[in-house]
Amino acid sequence: MNRRAIAAEALGGAMLSATVIGSGIMAERLAGGNAAIALLGNTLATAAMLFVLVTMLAPVSGAHLNPAVTLVLRLRGRVRTDAAIAYAGAQLAGCVLGAWIAHLMFDLPILQLSERMRGGPGQLAGEAVATFGLVLTILGTARLRPGSISAGVALYIAAAYWFTSSTGFANPAITIARSFSNSFAGIAPAGVPGFLAAQLAGAVAAWLVGGVLFPDRREDRS
Amino acid sequence: MNRRAIAAEALGGAMLSATVIGSGIMAERLAGGNAAIALLGNTLATAAMLFVLVTMLAPVSGAHLNPAVTLVLRLRGRVRTDAAIAYAGAQLAGCVLGAWIAHLMFDLPILQLSERMRGGPGQLAGEAVATFGLVLTILGTARLRPGSISAGVALYIAAAYWFTSSTGFANPAITIARSFSNSFAGIAPAGVPGFLAAQLAGAVAAWLVGGVLFPDRREDRS
Amino acid sequence: MNRRAIAAEALGGAMLSATVIGSGIMAERLAGGNAAIALLGNTLATAAMLFVLVTMLAPVSGAHLNPAVTLVLRLRGRVRTDAAIAYAGAQLAGCVLGAWIAHLMFDLPILQLSERMRGGPGQLAGEAVATFGLVLTILGTARLRPGSISAGVALYIAAAYWFTSSTGFANPAITIARSFSNSFAGIAPAGVPGFLAAQLAGAVAAWLVGGVLFPDRREDRS
Amino acid sequence: MNRRAIAAEALGGAMLSATVIGSGIMAERLAGGNAAIALLGNTLATAAMLFVLVTMLAPVSGAHLNPAVTLVLRLRGRVRTDAAIAYAGAQLAGCVLGAWIAHLMFDLPILQLSERMRGGPGQLAGEAVATFGLVLTILGTARLRPGSISAGVALYIAAAYWFTSSTGFANPAITIARSFSNSFAGIAPAGVPGFLAAQLAGAVAAWLVGGVLFPDRREDRS
Repeated sequence: MNRRAIAAEALGGAMLSATVIGSGIMAERLAGGNAAIALLGNTLATAAMLFVLVTMLAPVSGAHLNPAVTLVLRLRGRVRTDAAIAYAGAQLAGCVLGAWIAHLMFDLPILQLSERMRGGPGQLAGEAVATFGLVLTILGTARLRPGSISAGVALYIAAAYWFTSSTGFANPAITIARSFSNSFAGIAPAGVPGFLAAQLAGAVAAWLVGGVLFPDRREDRS
Repeated sequence: MNRRAIAAEALGGAMLSATVIGSGIMAERLAGGNAAIALLGNTLATAAMLFVLVTMLAPVSGAHLNPAVTLVLRLRGRVRTDAAIAYAGAQLAGCVLGAWIAHLMFDLPILQLSERMRGGPGQLAGEAVATFGLVLTILGTARLRPGSISAGVALYIAAAYWFTSSTGFANPAITIARSFSNSFAGIAPAGVPGFLAAQLAGAVAAWLVGGVLFPDRREDRS
Repeated sequence: MNRRAIAAEALGGAMLSATVIGSGIMAERLAGGNAAIALLGNTLATAAMLFVLVTMLAPVSGAHLNPAVTLVLRLRGRVRTDAAIAYAGAQLAGCVLGAWIAHLMFDLPILQLSERMRGGPGQLAGEAVATFGLVLTILGTARLRPGSISAGVALYIAAAYWFTSSTGFANPAITIARSFSNSFAGIAPAGVPGFLAAQLAGAVAAWLVGGVLFPDRREDRS
Repeated sequence: MNRRAIAAEALGGAMLSATVIGSGIMAERLAGGNAAIALLGNTLATAAMLFVLVTMLAPVSGAHLNPAVTLVLRLRGRVRTDAAIAYAGAQLAGCVLGAWIAHLMFDLPILQLSERMRGGPGQLAGEAVATFGLVLTILGTARLRPGSISAGVALYIAAAYWFTSSTGFANPAITIARSFSNSFAGIAPAGVPGFLAAQLAGAVAAWLVGGVLFPDRREDRS
């Protein structure tokens, strides 16, 4: 098993999570109560960091940074089962660590649990759609010239923060990490299982649709 | 006829329309009454999704996603008549479905009709200009290296949301879909025919100008 | 003389000017008095349109779209004198036409003169700096792979809208066109000569510095 | 020693610093007291200018524009010691000059000292994280196709302005220059040593991690 790749997934997860949560804290502090302005800052930071992380880590680990992505690439036979499990563990550990780094930077208690309720039929539909689109974007752009996948993932998530009712988490590791932060980007632990189930459903749907639209020609990006 | 291409046009239409309408709902809910902030969010999401869709679907269907574009590519002889009709039908069906998906995600009644009046000489001029520029952008960038058309279409529409008085619909299928949503991005059905006529006029003008500025050398895209 | 190139400069000038002025009108109408929000919309639209225009028109005319740019490329021997004069005329005519198209789209009187006073030592320094940087960006990026100049020009102007006190006009043809619009993007005619002189000074300074930093190896972008 | 390269570092430092400080002044003046809107404008301008500067100056000097970057490239053996010292001096002189140019453009007293207190454990952690990520981004993207590093640096800093509690200075030369500006982007001189120490720690950490994740294959970007 490639230890550099697993370290890259953990590091990338930490930087992504610190960005999602840190920029949420910054945005809420500065936005004077206007949630759209806060979401603009949160979106900008998240999309920019995703572009950077996918660009620099794709040659090392594929830059999945997301257990739903790793699952679908396992289903397509691009990663082995043991590597997929190690990837998911590294992503989750990294994302939780990133939440704690964000709290450290903003002088907040490190250990928190979110009290922000998220859920309901609309938001679950939102998560399923958000994850469906993210996985489809990856399957569709990984076949193209280098750079397409970085821009594709970053811009897809920028759109999903706005067009899905759940603000497009679309990532089980980030979802769990967000439950450890009682801030703008948080989600109360009670809402996590529903989000994860919806993300799983969306990912599997994208795998099915992607198998038709984007049949496997070259390697995806394992 | 290429069934994968037609499915791609329908899927792309649905994702584009869900983004235009969903981000409009999100933006209006969060923006606290400031329409410029709402339009910033709506613009960001729409342009980001357009980049993603054109990048990943262009190799499958050409990623027209717009009957005005399909019409001009028909006029230039890049698609056959039967394919053009199938494309337009798929685009329209996809866009209407996307509006309904947006409503589902935001816990709104699925079936709606917009009551937002749009029209008048200025806005009709706006739609003609917006569509003229979009079609010209496609004719001018499709000849260049891959990636130019994705960025071109996305950024052109970002500009058109702001510089045209109609906020640059520039797409008959999206226009009709928006009439089924009584939200930020909607248009009352009474305003639709005028918008479609203006879009048609802009597209034909771009075909004429594009024939001079960008004579057909290599294939356009499809 | 290449008539397609001259038509491209006029068309590009019109689209650029309609974007600068139209998005200024839209932004001011929607922003509820917050000038920073209005400038965000104005910046986004202008930079997006510049990317599109430079990308699609560079292969036709070089996409100068700016008499200060044409002048420096004349000084570097990249265009002939008669072509440079024709370019500048086309740019100016296009930009004025674009202002009128913006007014038409927003149901405003077509013929206007701006009453917005701009000038003073700080703003003149701003215009000189803005034009210096724009011309240097063009000389520095035109030598690189295609696409660098489109992104370079668009992003440079996005920055200049914010970091220069004059909001970075950096273009004599656009400056004159803006004097014909009594809106957010306008400039009272009395301020125009000072802006043009400062732009000229900045362009010549960039030509001198660019001659040292970026000596002419391949063609610029005639 | 390459005098063109040293001139490029000084010029780039001046343009970067004028952008950081100038856009901060503009943003604060226009934003009506909403700090998130001001930070959006400041972020947009800084990231856009970084893209331009790295794109056009990388072929001349490597476009370090940052003593922390020059230090790490010295540690990796990509620059000689005398060149590194000359680079750092040019960067610092350029950045201070850029602050003064910003003041000139905005009709402010040229010579100022900031009174904006910045520091404390959270912000120092923020600076260490911000610089760690910036250096890692450079080490990770410099090995890829041209263009990756421009977009990487620009987007990384856009994210860092929002996800780190210190708004991601991540650059000793810019930090010192900001202490000479009593404006939005300023930092009181008393806070500078702590920021520099944190930046140094972050840069060295990135050198260590980067040595494992991104071992030196081709030239970095000396």
